[in-house]
Amino acid sequence: MTIGEYIAQELKTDQRLPFDTQQCIFPKKHVLTETGHVETHVYFLQEGIVEAGIHKEGEDRIIEFFYPHQFVSSYTSFLTQRKSDVYLVCLTDCKIERMNHTDLVAAYQHSLVANQLGRHLTERAYLQRVQKEKDFLVKSAEERYLDLLAQRPEVAMEIPVSKIAKYLGIHPESLSRIRKSIS
Amino acid sequence: MTIGEYIAQELKTDQRLPFDTQQCIFPKKHVLTETGHVETHVYFLQEGIVEAGIHKEGEDRIIEFFYPHQFVSSYTSFLTQRKSDVYLVCLTDCKIERMNHTDLVAAYQHSLVANQLGRHLTERAYLQRVQKEKDFLVKSAEERYLDLLAQRPEVAMEIPVSKIAKYLGIHPESLSRIRKSIS
Repeated sequence: MTIGEYIAQELKTDQRLPFDTQQCIFPKKHVLTETGHVETHVYFLQEGIVEAGIHKEGEDRIIEFFYPHQFVSSYTSFLTQRKSDVYLVCLTDCKIERMNHTDLVAAYQHSLVANQLGRHLTERAYLQRVQKEKDFLVKSAEERYLDLLAQRPEVAMEIPVSKIAKYLGIHPESLSRIRKSIS
Repeated sequence: MTIGEYIAQELKTDQRLPFDTQQCIFPKKHVLTETGHVETHVYFLQEGIVEAGIHKEGEDRIIEFFYPHQFVSSYTSFLTQRKSDVYLVCLTDCKIERMNHTDLVAAYQHSLVANQLGRHLTERAYLQRVQKEKDFLVKSAEERYLDLLAQRPEVAMEIPVSKIAKYLGIHPESLSRIRKSIS
């Protein structure tokens, strides 16, 4: 799916963005956004999985996994144009269509569809953030693991166990126990 | 300031929203949005202070105070049209201009300025949320109290001490100690 197709499907409009997007192929482990750099893009993930995380005292803490047909960005950095706290890295080979900050912000001055898309993806990001906060407060690691599997079962299988443990905030051995008790 | 004036100032456009807003005067303690109800409005606070909170085992937990020239809404409920987890109440007499859900969502289909405003206020809400999460992780109650005073010193003076303690998540006596040590 392209951004154009996503717009047609989700925003129910046949309007097109008034700027060109870039089509990219990135290999596994390619860093999209580095901690300490300013985010210059919003990425639309066409194929593959992207990991968002924080470097914390030498160890990475994984905040989120992104799947095909989702928008990905270090969004606070994108909006403020200040240095990013988080990194974004390709967890698998990825096919990505991206929009750059200059084009998008310029289009916000006059383009209906650019604003509709910007509003839509910000609403999604907001709701995701709220849901995540709530899940952390009320759900156990096991429940959050089951949610991860339920969300995109076929894709979640591609995420290494060590990464899932870092996402759940538990030791890999605890995750092994959860996996055994489920199967 | 009206929503029209806010749009002119923040979005740098002389376009007007394609629907009527409602101008309201609410007394102190008036409930704008009740927990368990669906949010039907986005409020623009012209004068006064609004408190957002959660009822938790009989005791209220205050999430945020809103000041003049800010938009206020139980925004997750507004976006999803599901029951609200939070309540919104007037902490003082309030002068408010409000937009209703039906008008705003209908305008999103065709109006540039409605989408610009919707995008802008969602971006603000997103950034506020991220900042709040960070502050809770890294700042002490004393630092958060100083932030509250710094943000809107003249308005923060109108918030009762008991409410500020509920916002900081500390006992009123601890807040008294902090206030003494500062002055």
